[in-house]
Amino acid sequence: MSELRKDPITFRYVIIAPNRAERPNCFEYDVNANNIIECPFCEGREKSTPPEIFAYRDENSKANSPGWKVRVVPNKFPALILKEKLARKNIGMFEKMQGFGSHEVIIETPRHYKKLHQLSEEQIKLVIDTYQHRLTDLKTDERLKYILIFKNEGSKAGATINHSHSQLIATPVIPIAIAEELQGAIKYFNQNGCCIFCDIIENEKYFGERVFFENEYFICFCPYASRFPFEIWILPKKHNTDYKNISEIEKSYLAKTLKIVLNKLTQAAGNPDYNYIIHTGPNRAAHQSYWQAIDKAFHWHIEIIPRLTGMAGFEWGSNFFINPVPPENSAKQLRNTE
Amino acid sequence: MSELRKDPITFRYVIIAPNRAERPNCFEYDVNANNIIECPFCEGREKSTPPEIFAYRDENSKANSPGWKVRVVPNKFPALILKEKLARKNIGMFEKMQGFGSHEVIIETPRHYKKLHQLSEEQIKLVIDTYQHRLTDLKTDERLKYILIFKNEGSKAGATINHSHSQLIATPVIPIAIAEELQGAIKYFNQNGCCIFCDIIENEKYFGERVFFENEYFICFCPYASRFPFEIWILPKKHNTDYKNISEIEKSYLAKTLKIVLNKLTQAAGNPDYNYIIHTGPNRAAHQSYWQAIDKAFHWHIEIIPRLTGMAGFEWGSNFFINPVPPENSAKQLRNTE
Repeated sequence: MSELRKDPITFRYVIIAPNRAERPNCFEYDVNANNIIECPFCEGREKSTPPEIFAYRDENSKANSPGWKVRVVPNKFPALILKEKLARKNIGMFEKMQGFGSHEVIIETPRHYKKLHQLSEEQIKLVIDTYQHRLTDLKTDERLKYILIFKNEGSKAGATINHSHSQLIATPVIPIAIAEELQGAIKYFNQNGCCIFCDIIENEKYFGERVFFENEYFICFCPYASRFPFEIWILPKKHNTDYKNISEIEKSYLAKTLKIVLNKLTQAAGNPDYNYIIHTGPNRAAHQSYWQAIDKAFHWHIEIIPRLTGMAGFEWGSNFFINPVPPENSAKQLRNTE
Repeated sequence: MSELRKDPITFRYVIIAPNRAERPNCFEYDVNANNIIECPFCEGREKSTPPEIFAYRDENSKANSPGWKVRVVPNKFPALILKEKLARKNIGMFEKMQGFGSHEVIIETPRHYKKLHQLSEEQIKLVIDTYQHRLTDLKTDERLKYILIFKNEGSKAGATINHSHSQLIATPVIPIAIAEELQGAIKYFNQNGCCIFCDIIENEKYFGERVFFENEYFICFCPYASRFPFEIWILPKKHNTDYKNISEIEKSYLAKTLKIVLNKLTQAAGNPDYNYIIHTGPNRAAHQSYWQAIDKAFHWHIEIIPRLTGMAGFEWGSNFFINPVPPENSAKQLRNTE
């Protein structure tokens, strides 16, 4: 099975997952066609996925049969699995762990040919409810240090099946990008006594030029140091570290907001492929002592990355990005579309 | 002109370069065709680039005319330029600098339709000489904190012109990925009293399974925590922090090594697009005090990243990579090709 390997220089982890090489179009991320006849995510084809973990379904319907609205299944080619033992091993100067964790697929609709922003607000709300349900469930396992929820929309964004879905990967370590974001937020809190994200909201509202949509509960803008054209951050206005604690009213507003924002992105940027990632706090059960520092410093949010420009050698070598479109221009175009 | 913006959370820099939006195929990184009739890098079309900065050319030939072997010109759509003033500015909680720096193109051959590994060893040696020449020249400017040399080969790797070339970007800050690598190396040195890269060479030689080529001066392997199938590192066996100090004999061996390694990659992985990046020490003139720590801890090397798999949401959100091909398997395939 898979294993987690730690780079001895940067402490960056990699999942070596040989079974992933078997999935459809493993080395192809520019194949767009996807056959509806064989789509394993369509209603009526429940047997073509592993047995479901969770579903919102009609009262009288049975698990792994039609009658569902949102369905969560294990990834058929999982990068990590919960059955593995959580064991570290050293080989010379190198360190590895078994591929312990969870890799799930959230099927967002029983219908093919619908993207998330084309679904009704009610249906999007169910997807948002599902994210919360899975986080709440997995966070009871304190061996899981972090749970990352993300979406690959379109082949350029890494999707291999074009039926609308998101994914969840729960890992036995905090991913390095998240750890750096948390450390940055803690450092700012220690220096300034307030949440950096709350301050970003204040600054963005004051300058105004990068904000393109807001309502009572959410603010949407192209961040100051946008790495990509039309990069979008969605921040809840109320300080809250953990997506798991999102309220009912916030979830309703998030459904509205996501639909509007993704519609705007589709129109302003020419229907691009994109990724979104939910940045939330690490698993509280696994980080009791750390939590006190994070609780006031970190603020959950969603980052949307349209895949209009690629990563070239400079970006790989430096983690320095060249963005040809100022975020003020992207925001203006997003503001001016429906 | 362009500006450098600092992300307030992670201190990651971004170059906002609106002029880059004008370059050919700005938003297209999957267009492969490139018209030889209009190629600005071919011999005889020297007027279609900005005036040359440096060239290896026949004794009697004039600058910006035919008769050259390797030619360095400013990028026509530079992300950074040396004319800008080096000035920092704060806007609310945000920080920016003018787009100060240098962005150069190294044209590796006067002939179209030749990739680097198809050139003669003598010609590759000239490219390697050119890298050293440009580093030596730019490192006299202590406002330049780092000089990154990289190659985008093929459209999936970000190349917009398919005439073989590399690039150089000199920046007024150390890029975050380099800073993290340096910090990791310093930490290891402080704990263990030796260079982590020298230790990696010893470990890789001992285990053997990830090494696929070596000679007197260089060792080539797929790193333990490879992020990608066929990821390759080329390390000089002699400890040396700075590519600028590479010796004549090492340069001859590097030319041989690069030709062999890129040939092997082309055959074993089906002629993939790729990036390579020279990881070298920061500008010594700009970091006198820092240098003492780096000198023994850091070891220049080349990282090659084939573009067989894409970045999806998980990788973006976590800097955690899923690699379906164990580096031991990649190395075996590379070992078994000519």
